[in-house]
Amino acid sequence: MRAICYDPNSHLPREFPQGGVEYRNDHPDPAVADGECLVRVRLAGICATDLQIINGYMGFNGILGHEMVGTVVSGSSALRDKRVACEINCVCRECEMCAAGLANHCLNRTVMGIAGRDGCFADLVAVPERNLYEVPDVISDEEAVFIEPLAAAYQVLAQCPIEKRMNVSVVGAGRLGLLIAQVLATTGCKLTVVGRNPKTLLLCEKKGVQAIHTDHLAPKPDRDVVVECTGSPSGLDIAMSLVRPRGTIVLKSTHAGDEPINLSRIAVNEVTLLGSRCGPFPEAINALARQAVEVRSMISRTYPIEQGVEALEAARKPENVKILIKVNR
Amino acid sequence: MRAICYDPNSHLPREFPQGGVEYRNDHPDPAVADGECLVRVRLAGICATDLQIINGYMGFNGILGHEMVGTVVSGSSALRDKRVACEINCVCRECEMCAAGLANHCLNRTVMGIAGRDGCFADLVAVPERNLYEVPDVISDEEAVFIEPLAAAYQVLAQCPIEKRMNVSVVGAGRLGLLIAQVLATTGCKLTVVGRNPKTLLLCEKKGVQAIHTDHLAPKPDRDVVVECTGSPSGLDIAMSLVRPRGTIVLKSTHAGDEPINLSRIAVNEVTLLGSRCGPFPEAINALARQAVEVRSMISRTYPIEQGVEALEAARKPENVKILIKVNR
Repeated sequence: MRAICYDPNSHLPREFPQGGVEYRNDHPDPAVADGECLVRVRLAGICATDLQIINGYMGFNGILGHEMVGTVVSGSSALRDKRVACEINCVCRECEMCAAGLANHCLNRTVMGIAGRDGCFADLVAVPERNLYEVPDVISDEEAVFIEPLAAAYQVLAQCPIEKRMNVSVVGAGRLGLLIAQVLATTGCKLTVVGRNPKTLLLCEKKGVQAIHTDHLAPKPDRDVVVECTGSPSGLDIAMSLVRPRGTIVLKSTHAGDEPINLSRIAVNEVTLLGSRCGPFPEAINALARQAVEVRSMISRTYPIEQGVEALEAARKPENVKILIKVNR
Repeated sequence: MRAICYDPNSHLPREFPQGGVEYRNDHPDPAVADGECLVRVRLAGICATDLQIINGYMGFNGILGHEMVGTVVSGSSALRDKRVACEINCVCRECEMCAAGLANHCLNRTVMGIAGRDGCFADLVAVPERNLYEVPDVISDEEAVFIEPLAAAYQVLAQCPIEKRMNVSVVGAGRLGLLIAQVLATTGCKLTVVGRNPKTLLLCEKKGVQAIHTDHLAPKPDRDVVVECTGSPSGLDIAMSLVRPRGTIVLKSTHAGDEPINLSRIAVNEVTLLGSRCGPFPEAINALARQAVEVRSMISRTYPIEQGVEALEAARKPENVKILIKVNR
């Protein structure tokens, strides 16, 4: 089958712009374990995490990709031929975290395209049946491919209830930031988005969310909640300059490598820093179905899977927001 | 009056072991503002924060010191000649933080010996009357000097309720760590203290708290709560290796300078990092009065104020736990 693979140790020819990343048309089909379905991938999305993985984050090796919509080929009579989105954490249901109802933190988990399990930048992907969510007809493929990151955006609300009276900022107006901003806007809170990219800041304004360029930011520590989703360590520094004493920073960014930072302000101002990762699929599906969140305007370009390496390159450029990879009809 | 002063820009003779720190016997007496008392300092304690300040933390300039017991000389008829401990945050009672009941985060605050206000390594210190707490007779001067850091230890419980069933570690077996360990031990939780200093780890064991040397630490992420109080940026790395997914790290350390760190584990494991600073004086006074916490065994040596510079040097040495400065009878 066709697949976009990452192998940090591979010796690829020079013409590949991104070391270790390769398009293959001869990748073996996935092995399907008990309880798993085989899914034919229709459309996949590129996430900042994919770009971090190519920088060495997670030490991953295999087929990239974890945002997708596909059609179930086999493994489930209920879902056969249905369009599905896929929860990326594949869990054991037996460890103490699973037993405590924290399956996303399963101690034995594999994560599609991120840790110990092939991803969805391929014709076919094998995933546990229980990870699949049928996509309603009212949600197009182009929208459904946002379900996974939109769920991650809803996780902010799940962990940190936002009230209308609150002063809230999203730091980072990238792919995830634009989704989080839309989710937070539904609460009616006083919301600003802080970013560096004029294009995505304009997108925010079009969605009715006040946008501030980092260069014009008054570092007034008056936000009750700041969501840090720049994907870069420098975002936390901005977040610390905006959050009020005893306020909350929701930390979404993950990245490879250590960065110099001083967390004394967290201690002195008794700030709560709340790590946040994957979120609830049903909320994301529901939001797209009732058009509470708009995602199509975020799509910059769609590449065929044969140009997956070019697609990853394009996703790194600030002029692009969401880059998709078209795999199958 | 006599005082130990810090001025980062001073040109001290070479023989001073700590640049910028100076003993003076000709310092002017403090000016006393409306609502303030003049307190004659009896005994003062050296804290890791004092040592950080000498490294440039907070950009402080003035008389050092914020842990003390003294006698009220003037400014309060109720407290005159009484022995008192002193809450270090001097607040405006008018800003939005004060109005919100978060006076310790007053936007206009000065902090004794830390920010914008002279400290207590001196014969006399001027402090707002409302900052003073009378010390009961059952608490000796040697114990009372621990009230301020012990209050900071109680702040951990105020922010993060600890239950008996919980698996808790204190990372850092220094001055503050030993106090926090004793406070947490009163909850009956499963407690371990992690540190590098065999001397203070032995002190923990003597107090009935299990102590583990960092070198022998199994990095099993199974703690519900980890309190990080090493005073060093490396402590957070250890804390992140011990806390369970969705667990809590209480961050006590403050320090000068940036340090390389990767907080991706906070996001991935959805850890809550809780900054924690000053705490409730009444709980600390009460604990010392009923002997729930033992502090005398932590005192390594007491220096007269004339040897205050040497006292600060001694406080940096790992073989010493608490160093006190005797000022007046």
